[in-house]
Amino acid sequence: MTGLAESAGMDQSATSDSAPVDIQLAERLFDELKRRTGTNRGITRTSYGLGEQIAHDMVRREARKLGLEVKTDPGCNLYMRMKGREKRPGIFIGSHLDSVPMGGNFDGAAGVLIGLSVVSGYVRAGIRPPRDITVMAVRAEESTWFGASYVGSRAALGRLTGKELDQVKRSSDQISLGAAIDAAGGDTEFLRSGKSYLDPADIAMFIEPHIEQGPVLLERQIPVGIVTGIRGSFRYREAKCIGVYAHSGATPREYRSDAVRAASALVTKLDKAWDRLQAEGADLVVTFGQFSTDPSEAAFSKIAGKLSFSLDVRSQEPQTLARMQAIVIETVARIEAEHRVKFELGRLTDSKSAKMDDSIVTALSDFAREQGIETETMACGAGHDAAVFADAGVPTGMVFIRNANGSHNPDEHMDIADFAEAARLVSALCLDPPLKA
Amino acid sequence: MTGLAESAGMDQSATSDSAPVDIQLAERLFDELKRRTGTNRGITRTSYGLGEQIAHDMVRREARKLGLEVKTDPGCNLYMRMKGREKRPGIFIGSHLDSVPMGGNFDGAAGVLIGLSVVSGYVRAGIRPPRDITVMAVRAEESTWFGASYVGSRAALGRLTGKELDQVKRSSDQISLGAAIDAAGGDTEFLRSGKSYLDPADIAMFIEPHIEQGPVLLERQIPVGIVTGIRGSFRYREAKCIGVYAHSGATPREYRSDAVRAASALVTKLDKAWDRLQAEGADLVVTFGQFSTDPSEAAFSKIAGKLSFSLDVRSQEPQTLARMQAIVIETVARIEAEHRVKFELGRLTDSKSAKMDDSIVTALSDFAREQGIETETMACGAGHDAAVFADAGVPTGMVFIRNANGSHNPDEHMDIADFAEAARLVSALCLDPPLKA
Repeated sequence: MTGLAESAGMDQSATSDSAPVDIQLAERLFDELKRRTGTNRGITRTSYGLGEQIAHDMVRREARKLGLEVKTDPGCNLYMRMKGREKRPGIFIGSHLDSVPMGGNFDGAAGVLIGLSVVSGYVRAGIRPPRDITVMAVRAEESTWFGASYVGSRAALGRLTGKELDQVKRSSDQISLGAAIDAAGGDTEFLRSGKSYLDPADIAMFIEPHIEQGPVLLERQIPVGIVTGIRGSFRYREAKCIGVYAHSGATPREYRSDAVRAASALVTKLDKAWDRLQAEGADLVVTFGQFSTDPSEAAFSKIAGKLSFSLDVRSQEPQTLARMQAIVIETVARIEAEHRVKFELGRLTDSKSAKMDDSIVTALSDFAREQGIETETMACGAGHDAAVFADAGVPTGMVFIRNANGSHNPDEHMDIADFAEAARLVSALCLDPPLKA
Repeated sequence: MTGLAESAGMDQSATSDSAPVDIQLAERLFDELKRRTGTNRGITRTSYGLGEQIAHDMVRREARKLGLEVKTDPGCNLYMRMKGREKRPGIFIGSHLDSVPMGGNFDGAAGVLIGLSVVSGYVRAGIRPPRDITVMAVRAEESTWFGASYVGSRAALGRLTGKELDQVKRSSDQISLGAAIDAAGGDTEFLRSGKSYLDPADIAMFIEPHIEQGPVLLERQIPVGIVTGIRGSFRYREAKCIGVYAHSGATPREYRSDAVRAASALVTKLDKAWDRLQAEGADLVVTFGQFSTDPSEAAFSKIAGKLSFSLDVRSQEPQTLARMQAIVIETVARIEAEHRVKFELGRLTDSKSAKMDDSIVTALSDFAREQGIETETMACGAGHDAAVFADAGVPTGMVFIRNANGSHNPDEHMDIADFAEAARLVSALCLDPPLKA
């Protein structure tokens, strides 16, 4: 590891903007990422695999050029630190560099490149920020590879279990998580000890910039979002409604045990509950993503005897999740009686919601106003590493960048102008963080 | 062909019952059918194939033993006639002898064997009925083989087209319908001429006994049903609801184009319309038998962008079908607007409803009362050859036999005691038919 290079250079070409950023650096790195981790269709940066490693090597190279102190931890996360004026807990700007298979170039990477753009902006403007700024490139955020969430951030905070290291296998090649970490240069012995590489008390705040994965900013024509909280969830991934197959023409209404009618009634009733709770001000989304009769048995002239479905319920508010879960259980019981069917909801999984730090949300909103950046405060529906830091007690914030065509697909699209707005906001925040003196 | 044997024999072992039937004959033939057309799982009597031919040969053999006049027509339907006292239009008792693959032993065959049981009952009791009684074994009723309905009865009535004969292929071996008919000894040249082998004016009535394919008689604990009409239908076999795939957590309610929510709303709204029309006294069934998100694209954390479904609507009343079709179109338009989705309903197919003859329904009900047979008058939801005869202007009736476990599967189950009750009812009807003198 090189030592901290004290923002040497003092490049006079830097902008004189009060919140400088180096967007050309980000553009160059996005292009290089696309070229080097692109496939026939979209880009692929496998967790602890080749594409992710290329991305880590690239940002490490840039960090060294900028004179940052570069370190990795036992989970192979990468820390690139610019020293600040005060010897006090510093600010982390971080996100992940892996992607789903055939994903887009911006999901994850945009957060890390905002960090480098901010730091490079300071270096070029000859500014030394009040606190240390650490750009963190997190490993293995996409659960599609190991079926486990937030591997990298949990590794950094001592929250990965030995059981996961041994039992969880990568979907693409069945290599265990532990073996993959060791092969990438990590230290699973340390991880197994349960010790935390990072001390949350040393982190003044964790900021994760990320493309918005939904259409809200696009539809509202606003470039940047300020996240108020990350939604928690409960999920039935493999639920079933069991009826009785019977002849469609020969079986009257009152003798039917129709899985399609019963399951549709559940969708409709939960939709009404969603509408009601949202009208009361609750944050909530309810999704039946998979919903299928059995292709081998269903026929157009047969009443359906089985329908399999998934149910995904998300909210920022634990009490809303609890209310919805009670509504699901009660609604299922009523439909069972009314439609002569049985529901088998299967295993319940859940994830905790995470509140973003109020003072960060307020500060970001204030800076946006000052800088003339249009923003929208909003909930974040997908999970992010930020949730792990928030759960560890670190004051945490997220900034969303407007994005078209959703995420996790090759068509995701972020405009670099929107990226620049988000970067300016983060830059302003780091120069004047809402921290006690 | 042998000539008509004039109910020779006058077997004195026959019952002295006023409506004699020979149930032992039927039991023996059911056993033989099961043995000779059985497979590892259920029985298979392919239309114009081996199993159906075995069944035709068996009943022809029995008819000859009973001294009946035996004929086949250009569509290979089999007619077995007992001469009556009067030289006037006679009575047909008929059903089909084919089955679905791995089906049950009773669907179709029960109707033909009731015909033989009745005729054998008369022969053994030394009774000559007032009119000719023709037991008709119809070919190829199950549309699973050729994808065409009522092939045999339409062939007998000049309603099969040359296009069907050439283009329709058997699902099991891709042999064309015409080639299969010729191979079974038929005469497709005659069929192509469009001439009717049967003259509807020569048929005083057509009676089709059949197992009930639904659970109504079973649930109501009644052995025999008297059918008031055969339901017509309209069907969308390959309909789709098209939404937009999006991240479940990141896409709020008002930006969703959720195919599951929209299609479930359609199910629920048509269910309410069904309830309302039924309360008004309409005969109606509404079935979404197939209902599926796309397994290759749907995921638990993705809003569904597509759902494929089938819709089958049946009623005895043409006006009810027309009302429901208008409701479907109007409901789809409203849901499209409300849920930001598109429905592609695809090709509409339909079948006409057929009313059973009132005087036959009344006569059957009267005989049942006299004979102490419990019956229920009811609509028939599935299609049957009887519909083709009714449509040709022949006074038509159907008698249902209680049956467990539905039909078109190896578990269908009819009690021979229920079969005997239905046979006695048909026997009584043929001895005193509700015909003008």
